[in-house]
Amino acid sequence: MEYNQFFSQTAKSIKASAIRELLKVIARPEIISFAGGLPDPALFPKQEIADIMQDILRTRPKEALQYGSTEGQKYLKDQLIELTKKVEGVEVTAEQILIISASQQGLDMCARLFVNRGDAIITASPTYLGGLQAFQASGADIYGAESDEFGLTTAGLEKSLQQLKAAGKICKFIYVVPDFQNPTGTTIPQQRRMEILELADKYDTLILEDSPYRQVRFEGKAPDTFLKLDQGKGRVITLFTFSKVLVPGFRLGYMIGPKEIIHKAVILKQAMDLCTASILQLATAAYLEKGYLAAHIQEMISTYKVKRDLMLSLLKEHMPAGVTWTVPEGGLFLWVTVPDYIDTREMLKTALEEQHVAYVAGEDFYPPRNARRNDLRLNFSYSSAEQLREGIKRLGLVVRKFIR
Amino acid sequence: MEYNQFFSQTAKSIKASAIRELLKVIARPEIISFAGGLPDPALFPKQEIADIMQDILRTRPKEALQYGSTEGQKYLKDQLIELTKKVEGVEVTAEQILIISASQQGLDMCARLFVNRGDAIITASPTYLGGLQAFQASGADIYGAESDEFGLTTAGLEKSLQQLKAAGKICKFIYVVPDFQNPTGTTIPQQRRMEILELADKYDTLILEDSPYRQVRFEGKAPDTFLKLDQGKGRVITLFTFSKVLVPGFRLGYMIGPKEIIHKAVILKQAMDLCTASILQLATAAYLEKGYLAAHIQEMISTYKVKRDLMLSLLKEHMPAGVTWTVPEGGLFLWVTVPDYIDTREMLKTALEEQHVAYVAGEDFYPPRNARRNDLRLNFSYSSAEQLREGIKRLGLVVRKFIR
Repeated sequence: MEYNQFFSQTAKSIKASAIRELLKVIARPEIISFAGGLPDPALFPKQEIADIMQDILRTRPKEALQYGSTEGQKYLKDQLIELTKKVEGVEVTAEQILIISASQQGLDMCARLFVNRGDAIITASPTYLGGLQAFQASGADIYGAESDEFGLTTAGLEKSLQQLKAAGKICKFIYVVPDFQNPTGTTIPQQRRMEILELADKYDTLILEDSPYRQVRFEGKAPDTFLKLDQGKGRVITLFTFSKVLVPGFRLGYMIGPKEIIHKAVILKQAMDLCTASILQLATAAYLEKGYLAAHIQEMISTYKVKRDLMLSLLKEHMPAGVTWTVPEGGLFLWVTVPDYIDTREMLKTALEEQHVAYVAGEDFYPPRNARRNDLRLNFSYSSAEQLREGIKRLGLVVRKFIR
Repeated sequence: MEYNQFFSQTAKSIKASAIRELLKVIARPEIISFAGGLPDPALFPKQEIADIMQDILRTRPKEALQYGSTEGQKYLKDQLIELTKKVEGVEVTAEQILIISASQQGLDMCARLFVNRGDAIITASPTYLGGLQAFQASGADIYGAESDEFGLTTAGLEKSLQQLKAAGKICKFIYVVPDFQNPTGTTIPQQRRMEILELADKYDTLILEDSPYRQVRFEGKAPDTFLKLDQGKGRVITLFTFSKVLVPGFRLGYMIGPKEIIHKAVILKQAMDLCTASILQLATAAYLEKGYLAAHIQEMISTYKVKRDLMLSLLKEHMPAGVTWTVPEGGLFLWVTVPDYIDTREMLKTALEEQHVAYVAGEDFYPPRNARRNDLRLNFSYSSAEQLREGIKRLGLVVRKFIR
């Protein structure tokens, strides 16, 4: 049968994530992969989780296994209100929080709440691939604003905002991944955050802040979240997730925003999936209540910092002149730029076939009209020290083959 | 701040589910509620689930807590292929299955894959409220086709199909809940299913089959699924869920369809939430592998059958002449029709305030252009025998007050 006549514009325009397609190819055991965005599974607190699951199923089985409210379990929300106050210095109410099936659902939700097909939004360029996917599924016209070694630039952002204004278009929101951005590893400094917020105010638009790794900071002082800097003015929606600080397999996150927007998001979530799995909400709430999270994040920081340091020193050792990379203060990724005559997607074929090493070609992280072809993303959290040593050596050989 | 200028058409047009809003009101302990669609929590196999969780977290923690593929865990898919063959007599391949975060996600997904704003679809009238919500969120123009005591009628369906054809419109899909439909409890007989499929063929459209309760049959022989009757021709997409046959708190279901459609659904799910919680997929796979499901469903059937019988005999005892109701052969709901001068939404206020008994007004289940006001939905699975006795007595008093 031919289904084309039945498919919507959404179905016709969505594109498979290059990463998730790549993940299938690189499942071969001989390949050392820096392509995924996976946390190190050796760090998963499996015993604590097993104990908590037993506890929850013994003490509150009916709640854990039944439908929950669309807004999310009160037990979890109470913990999140406390966590947000303690960690971010921001007081929020239960009405400002929606429990979501991890950040990706929040991105999809915001796209659907704000974007009509053809509406403009602004992102950094490059930016998180899953954000681009979600926004494109709703038909967003994405304007990529210039970035530097600190992420989205104020000048780049204002240029895009002016461009839109001149075209008589409204910018539905500015999408930022301010801390250890995926893919570049860059962090927007405090002062620049304030300027970005001022621009949002000046041009009357919203900010969608996506901060999955924020707590995984190896060094330096964390700038405030946009959420905090907004001071309750209502321009900011923030997405947090437990995927990177606890486990991805729970698919659990939360959206904080103005209550008018959260109210709409709740209604949309009713139509999307009724609610997020009760049992995983309660287990995570118990994990937070027991105070396990801070120590777990410390362990993660120690482990990932060593891996980042190792990757940085290996890059220095194996990369030829003309290649540069970012030095992230936290998170899971760094970003390598090769001379502009090299197409990293072409180079990836050689990397996979000849050297059995994988990365993600940078092009996948650019909004379509801003595409650049000479970067690549490396993940340092998943591989062992041995894999890092061997893998970066191999990647060095690949780059040397392409460099003139 | 004023957000209206930022909201999309979707955000502006979505409506909160009357049921979920009602559920908040009726949380008061003095109210006996037949409004929810909740399974009886006393039946949840909590010990088996607790044991399996321990097992999974001991034997495959990395898989359980890590990201999984968007398509779903192989372990679960293998079990589902076997289950579908054994229970439904249908052979499917892994490529024809997508694991989803319960049926509601499948409904939302199909709406987004097929419906452009303004596109027409056909549903029975009345039909599942969550389906209406999902389809409306994508801007579907819903044509409700006439139903009788066996659900969607062939004549009603053909009338709607002709109406669309005359208007030069294509019907993107026909939505059916063929077994113990929510809200009416009706089941479409075998012969009529074949006629509906023939109509889908004649008018060249798809069938979206949603069957959450199918296995909860108290008596009589189950007709074949549309999936089976389609014989691989590719006109049918079927949604199954574990919410009613295992536990709702897992938010776990699966979509079976032609591989071209499943392929598109996988890409869309990447943008929606990356994947469904790995740990819950593995736990459910283990539950199926251990062969627990059949015995659990038997227990559910015994319990719910007694409750249905009790509700039917109580209705006979307490309802005045002029009131009729359906006799479902399975599932969780039945449908009461009162004389057409009674507005059940108005009557609900009296029911809640004076008699402390709740139901869902029938109007909520009708597509907007087909609304009828003199029905109500009763759930018989959740309440105890005592609550059933007292609640239906109270409901009888309410109806007697309104009847002329």
